[in-house]
Amino acid sequence: MRWAPVADETDPLVVGVDFGTLSGRAVVVRVRDGVELGSAVHEYPHAVVDRQLPGSGAPLPPDWALQVPADYVDVLGNAIPAALADAGVDPRRVIGVGTDFTACTMVPATADGTPLCELPAFREHPHAYAKLWRHHAAQPQADRINELAARRGEKWLPRYGGLISSEWEFAKALQILEEAPEVYAALERWVEAADWIVWQLTGSYVRNACSAGYKGIYQDGAYPSAEFLAELNPAFADFVTSRLDQPIGELGGRAGSLTAGAAALTGLPEGIAVAVGNVDAHVTAPAAGAVEPGQMVAIMGTSTCHVMSSDVLREVPGMCGVVDGGIVPGLHGYEAGQSGVGDIFAWYVENQVPPRYHEQAREREVSVHELLSELAAGQRVGEHGLIALDWHSGNRSVLVDHELSGLVIGQTLATRAEDVYRALLESTAFGARVIVENFNASGVPVTEFIVAGGLVRNPVLMQIYADVLDLPLSIIGSSQGPSLGAAMHAAVAAGAHRDIRAAAEAMGSVHRAVYMPDPAAARAYDRLFAEYLALHDHFGRRGNDVMHTLRALRRDAVEAGENG
Amino acid sequence: MRWAPVADETDPLVVGVDFGTLSGRAVVVRVRDGVELGSAVHEYPHAVVDRQLPGSGAPLPPDWALQVPADYVDVLGNAIPAALADAGVDPRRVIGVGTDFTACTMVPATADGTPLCELPAFREHPHAYAKLWRHHAAQPQADRINELAARRGEKWLPRYGGLISSEWEFAKALQILEEAPEVYAALERWVEAADWIVWQLTGSYVRNACSAGYKGIYQDGAYPSAEFLAELNPAFADFVTSRLDQPIGELGGRAGSLTAGAAALTGLPEGIAVAVGNVDAHVTAPAAGAVEPGQMVAIMGTSTCHVMSSDVLREVPGMCGVVDGGIVPGLHGYEAGQSGVGDIFAWYVENQVPPRYHEQAREREVSVHELLSELAAGQRVGEHGLIALDWHSGNRSVLVDHELSGLVIGQTLATRAEDVYRALLESTAFGARVIVENFNASGVPVTEFIVAGGLVRNPVLMQIYADVLDLPLSIIGSSQGPSLGAAMHAAVAAGAHRDIRAAAEAMGSVHRAVYMPDPAAARAYDRLFAEYLALHDHFGRRGNDVMHTLRALRRDAVEAGENG
Repeated sequence: MRWAPVADETDPLVVGVDFGTLSGRAVVVRVRDGVELGSAVHEYPHAVVDRQLPGSGAPLPPDWALQVPADYVDVLGNAIPAALADAGVDPRRVIGVGTDFTACTMVPATADGTPLCELPAFREHPHAYAKLWRHHAAQPQADRINELAARRGEKWLPRYGGLISSEWEFAKALQILEEAPEVYAALERWVEAADWIVWQLTGSYVRNACSAGYKGIYQDGAYPSAEFLAELNPAFADFVTSRLDQPIGELGGRAGSLTAGAAALTGLPEGIAVAVGNVDAHVTAPAAGAVEPGQMVAIMGTSTCHVMSSDVLREVPGMCGVVDGGIVPGLHGYEAGQSGVGDIFAWYVENQVPPRYHEQAREREVSVHELLSELAAGQRVGEHGLIALDWHSGNRSVLVDHELSGLVIGQTLATRAEDVYRALLESTAFGARVIVENFNASGVPVTEFIVAGGLVRNPVLMQIYADVLDLPLSIIGSSQGPSLGAAMHAAVAAGAHRDIRAAAEAMGSVHRAVYMPDPAAARAYDRLFAEYLALHDHFGRRGNDVMHTLRALRRDAVEAGENG
Repeated sequence: MRWAPVADETDPLVVGVDFGTLSGRAVVVRVRDGVELGSAVHEYPHAVVDRQLPGSGAPLPPDWALQVPADYVDVLGNAIPAALADAGVDPRRVIGVGTDFTACTMVPATADGTPLCELPAFREHPHAYAKLWRHHAAQPQADRINELAARRGEKWLPRYGGLISSEWEFAKALQILEEAPEVYAALERWVEAADWIVWQLTGSYVRNACSAGYKGIYQDGAYPSAEFLAELNPAFADFVTSRLDQPIGELGGRAGSLTAGAAALTGLPEGIAVAVGNVDAHVTAPAAGAVEPGQMVAIMGTSTCHVMSSDVLREVPGMCGVVDGGIVPGLHGYEAGQSGVGDIFAWYVENQVPPRYHEQAREREVSVHELLSELAAGQRVGEHGLIALDWHSGNRSVLVDHELSGLVIGQTLATRAEDVYRALLESTAFGARVIVENFNASGVPVTEFIVAGGLVRNPVLMQIYADVLDLPLSIIGSSQGPSLGAAMHAAVAAGAHRDIRAAAEAMGSVHRAVYMPDPAAARAYDRLFAEYLALHDHFGRRGNDVMHTLRALRRDAVEAGENG
């Protein structure tokens, strides 16, 4: 983060707004150099609706996760004015506003963009609410999509590493059709929240290329065919033409101008540029200056998302997707992911660390994570005698299997909490290395590894990544990468920078090679990584299917308990 | 335990003394029915000498574990009188005394039984002290013994599951010869502590059949040959004839009579019968009434020892040993073991259970073990979705590999402490099942499973064992199994019972089928056990040698740290 006094009180500014899972963050940024002048966070009043509906309190089934679209509007009306006040700047200096959003979060709407849950007839209907990215109840529909696509040899399937997620647009829509046909009948537009929020700002609906490509199966200028959709469900045949299709805007393009109403809501000048919507992870790449082929940005938080542009189109096994212009116009944007990273460490501290560590951390006024990291840092590679598999939340890339689970091997009666903690840190680094090596082997070489996200604050973890990857680790300069990235797209949309490359050059920031690999540690990790890989393939590629069997036995046990 | 008022004040009594790792326990028992009238414990003043020598404080290398033989005599002089006082009986009613000991614990002595460490010349020499069973510094010698025996095809090797332990008589003696030839030169008798203590009581040295067989490689009337020993080390050729060989007494036989000095020391009548020495686990079998073929007794504590008699002689892979008359004269006594059981649970509670469980246990005034067991008891089989390998302390039977280590598989972000705890309980039950199935498959069928030792107090664990083994679980009647067993041998030695079978019938006690297998749980465990077995063979039989690799990497890391 680079805070600086305002150098020139006429310098143009842009506003970026990052819509996360629980809150939205607005930041006011100087166009010339990306300096962040002020920011504000506004929490969604309804947060994540995953237990019961607002109002009636009707309970929701497992795996559901909804949101209330009005909460997003609340962010516009609260966080933007607060960020402007925090910056202490004249709002008239703002020339553009840009946004990014979680994905794939979907709003079911009428033709004018009204969310169905705001219609009196549907207020009590769960399917009328926004479906958050982590709504996982459409898995049966996703399974059918994948099975059919594989059977038909749909050529878009390899673009997604061979698997369409239950989180994405088609599976979620098909779930509505099949579980709530009356809601589906009233649904006139199936809108990415990323685009719905831009619609609220501009009054017109433009679909963004990133979401359309990664989440909407839009490849080579087309969606899945009507024949394909009809075979899934005859009533689904016209889904694309009737509810999904919409002009697609390039990233950094101008979706429209700020309406009078939105200007009144936000305190921003009417008529300024509003950028085409975008996705949180992808918008972070230019914020870290990563707009060239081979610069992989890992946004490391509870999970990790990897984004990278390339000038070649390849089918990388287990990637989340490759989309033309999906990150930077003119390049193929690749995405991969690790479904559990920081949340594995958090789970461990919460569930497997004994009292004496908590007491010591309290005494020393550090977090348990800091204490364990410090204790782990004193160890040599391999000293703990452990290896872990980082699959507590399943494996996204490269195995694409959410039924996998965690493993720790090598415990003795001398194994301590910091030993297992370090093994878990390392396991996620090994997971990242599998992804990097997979890209390299597929002809999409990774030349630089740039880290963004909350976990950059753990230097022990960062050094482990540098050693395991045997690559210098670069670190994003801003701690507000997504909102800065959104602001940069606003600057491009406003014409203040030629394109996103120029904006990244001027406004993005990265500290290069902050962590250098230690050659001896890197060699030692090569040996441990070979063992990780053997376990990875044995348990992940069905050499031993015990993880799936354990899931099945667990389901049987729970069902027997419910019936017994 | 069966406490009862003294029915007849002339009823004959016996005293049993159990010498454990940290203390000795004496119990006064009625010959007629085995009722325990009183007991007392005396802790060894020097406990385990594993860091520095008494006196000079000279530091000991890793893996060393010594004891001070005078501490054993202290038990005779303190615990026996205290137990008599506790029982409130006239000592003249005592007709015999019996002992049992840890094994293989060895005393280096002169020809008259004086421990070398009591000679002024050797007071500061570590090799002059008693070597406790868990002295593991003779592993290089054990490795050479095994390598040579396998190469020469020594026919005694299969009697020990193919492997002689570093804990046993030959490896420990060879270590002295090679590391301290001056001590070896002064060593005239290499005496099991089990026999040394009897020597103190009777004034004469009789070797017991149990230790000689299981720990002294005495098979079919002979020790390893002079040729074999010479090939190990020319100076070792005459080890058997010069230092080890001694008349062997049958279990339950009379080693001699209590000397006047020992009578004065203990408060027992001079001239009463002293039983031949014995080993703690083995003496527990008749205490649990297990003297017939197929009755397996599992003494479950920090580790588990399995003992069983049989009328057939078979080579059971991975057993600790089979000895003719090793438990009951006239039958082949089999021994097997699990190197980590209760100590794995203790390690887990100490190192992997978060504060809220400790707090809840404190509030409810139960131990963390009790709390976790109770929470785990509410689960259905398979509900936690986990499998563990119980190798935190290596694997004794049936893999005989101390370089193996623990494994937990199946963790998710929803896994709680009680889930892993239950998986660890189950893993030891699976380990026991491997042993039972191995005996069955080798033609030495296990027909009853009787549990003794401290872990019988955990009913959740016991039910899991019944379900996993799919066998009714019998429980020993006494909580002082070893000392009761020693007392029973005293009764036989005194001629009060015809033989150990008759003594077991009269004095031993077992509650049969206390825990019955639940058929549904047993079937569910069959499925989990199949998965355990697949992991067991994969990691234990070198399908994947990662556990050994991790040990090697650990050693490299520690060495690099020491040199760096």
